[in-house]
Amino acid sequence: MASATGTIPVRDQERALPGEGPRLARRAEAFASAFWAELGQVLARHPDMIFFGGGTPAHELMPVARLRDASLKAWADAPAALDYGEVAGYRPLREFIAAQMTGHGMAVDPEHLLLTNGSQQGIDLVGRVMLDPGDAIVIEAPTFLGAFQTFAAYEVTYLMAPTDEHGLRIDALERLLADQTRPPKLIYTIPTFQNPTGTTQPRARREALLALARAHGVLVVEDDPYGTLRYDGDHEPPLRALDPDVIYLGTFSKTLAPGLRVGWIAAPANLIGLFHSAKEGVDIHNERIMTRTVYHAVAGFLDDHLAHAREVYRGRRDALLAALRQHLPGTVRWSEPEGGFFVWVTLPEGLDTEALLPRAADAGVAFFPGTWFYPHDPDRRALRLSFSTMPKDRLVEGARRLGDVIRRQ
Amino acid sequence: MASATGTIPVRDQERALPGEGPRLARRAEAFASAFWAELGQVLARHPDMIFFGGGTPAHELMPVARLRDASLKAWADAPAALDYGEVAGYRPLREFIAAQMTGHGMAVDPEHLLLTNGSQQGIDLVGRVMLDPGDAIVIEAPTFLGAFQTFAAYEVTYLMAPTDEHGLRIDALERLLADQTRPPKLIYTIPTFQNPTGTTQPRARREALLALARAHGVLVVEDDPYGTLRYDGDHEPPLRALDPDVIYLGTFSKTLAPGLRVGWIAAPANLIGLFHSAKEGVDIHNERIMTRTVYHAVAGFLDDHLAHAREVYRGRRDALLAALRQHLPGTVRWSEPEGGFFVWVTLPEGLDTEALLPRAADAGVAFFPGTWFYPHDPDRRALRLSFSTMPKDRLVEGARRLGDVIRRQ
Repeated sequence: MASATGTIPVRDQERALPGEGPRLARRAEAFASAFWAELGQVLARHPDMIFFGGGTPAHELMPVARLRDASLKAWADAPAALDYGEVAGYRPLREFIAAQMTGHGMAVDPEHLLLTNGSQQGIDLVGRVMLDPGDAIVIEAPTFLGAFQTFAAYEVTYLMAPTDEHGLRIDALERLLADQTRPPKLIYTIPTFQNPTGTTQPRARREALLALARAHGVLVVEDDPYGTLRYDGDHEPPLRALDPDVIYLGTFSKTLAPGLRVGWIAAPANLIGLFHSAKEGVDIHNERIMTRTVYHAVAGFLDDHLAHAREVYRGRRDALLAALRQHLPGTVRWSEPEGGFFVWVTLPEGLDTEALLPRAADAGVAFFPGTWFYPHDPDRRALRLSFSTMPKDRLVEGARRLGDVIRRQ
Repeated sequence: MASATGTIPVRDQERALPGEGPRLARRAEAFASAFWAELGQVLARHPDMIFFGGGTPAHELMPVARLRDASLKAWADAPAALDYGEVAGYRPLREFIAAQMTGHGMAVDPEHLLLTNGSQQGIDLVGRVMLDPGDAIVIEAPTFLGAFQTFAAYEVTYLMAPTDEHGLRIDALERLLADQTRPPKLIYTIPTFQNPTGTTQPRARREALLALARAHGVLVVEDDPYGTLRYDGDHEPPLRALDPDVIYLGTFSKTLAPGLRVGWIAAPANLIGLFHSAKEGVDIHNERIMTRTVYHAVAGFLDDHLAHAREVYRGRRDALLAALRQHLPGTVRWSEPEGGFFVWVTLPEGLDTEALLPRAADAGVAFFPGTWFYPHDPDRRALRLSFSTMPKDRLVEGARRLGDVIRRQ
């Protein structure tokens, strides 16, 4: 579903250009199918669906009134702010982000930040600057499906690094890198509260990963949408805090709201100019009112907002984990995330969560099957639960329904 | 300046990865240099600079109060509109655009429209869906520099079709297409009030272009940012009105404001799904508050707004053309646009407008040299003047300064 479909629309005879339909780019063969449409059909199978769905913040934690008020401050900069300008993005917001990153151990100059339309565009720009057809890249197995869908458009091959309860396995990465005659171009990793597994790399693994990457001349791309949403356990330094050559992708999609489409790239001094050029080529610059709106909303507010959000999400995580312990059969395993939005559930040998999904949907519970998080060779026994958007009683009821469905298999 | 720089940043010794710096994508070699920074230095050369600059609407014609009020209506849809959603873009805005296009002879279903971050992203998505390295594409000589900068990232070769006072020359296009062993993938054209020449293709040429494209199996991409800004002369049908297989790029950048970053693609039924997939891969979807804001701003307003804008721009065009007649030497030629923002000026044999620019800047007048509008083999005698942003007296004074500078060569 999330993997390549290979389906290219074909024109009907009458409209066909001589000899053939429109000649598409090779990369279009790898475009994903319209995923959410398919999911929509699944969700329609029950009138009271409990959907352990996307990686989105809760509606009640989106600071709507503050954003709306902030937007009025932003509009005060019109008409000047309605012109072309600010390829790198609104400077006060870049300064705010730089201060936040520096506070998290990642000293960065606002000049080395580029605002993007969410991290998704950051991923795409990494591909645009770094990747040629046939390049190999390392991704975690499993990983964020939006990442490999986008990298697929750059016609790369994937080296899939296995993960365990501490994230990417360094022994496996070492073997993977040793096996290549030409080193991969980059390692794409979500080391903190990973999507979809919820796991976090301990510091020793982070240092080992960076040492391996440096030894093999491989760029590290750290995607960190959830890093500020830690509910307990010890802070682990972002990879970017340990190595300024890491390309870091950040976003307000999980801390404010994804519909705003405001994220950023922090890139080393010798690469940031290329990212500016790439951004200019794809859409010139971000929408200038919203980047101002986000700035006025977060300044003097984000830290308190996050403290509150962490409180709410911690309670939801705890409720879900307790309910899983109570309702899932003893043969089922799951991750216990210290932050972020996701729990990764692994069913016993022989079960297939993609096949399970329609039956679960008929029983009023839906999830993302694990298969969606691998470009190929998926673990068919896994599924992802997100606890961010639902109140505790729904999480508990969802776990109960899920347990019933699994037990019936 | 707008052409490939070939300059790839090199890391200093100490930070270098073993053996080499970061290995970039081949396409990064074609990334343009930071163009506006260079221009900024030129503009700083005089305290009272008259800049016949970018393709932007006048500040006083940006409907700021209406947009700000519209944004409050948009925020009423939060928090739902702050979630992920609407890959194709806010449906009421697509319905509005479909109605406008249908009114201009281009019947289109809102389902076949995709909102983009301005036309620039439309151009990029065309590249992403259609173009492989080594493909040839036809562009007009000269043409919009943002287009070939973006196509360059797809590692294409350009077949440059000469233009005259009626736009793209069909005889030349015919020879160009006949000469190819493999037909080019697409023809990128701005048939109406072209950037940078200001010229418009008459209907007979449009029909001939479409017939040639169809005979050779070449997709036509019509970029139409200025089409609704006609000041006199007869309406010419957009290519999309003559052939529904044309991919049409539209934008609010010239009719409202470019900083909003809202444009659209209209694609045939057999291609629109691929554009959705491509958009999802590059940034998931447009920012959802601004697309709503634009909808609430344009509904019941755009037609009147455009009528007023045309009045203002017509007066400015007339003032500039009269001033050129008065102040430029008799050996200079220029286009007489019936709409849009641009006049294309051609100096006598032997003059070089890129060399002229710093001297003109010292005299308080600046322009875009013609060389910037060709990926290679530029006409060095031409320059582009935009009349959209300045009051008449500044246009007249600018023409006077320009005449003096030319006369001094």
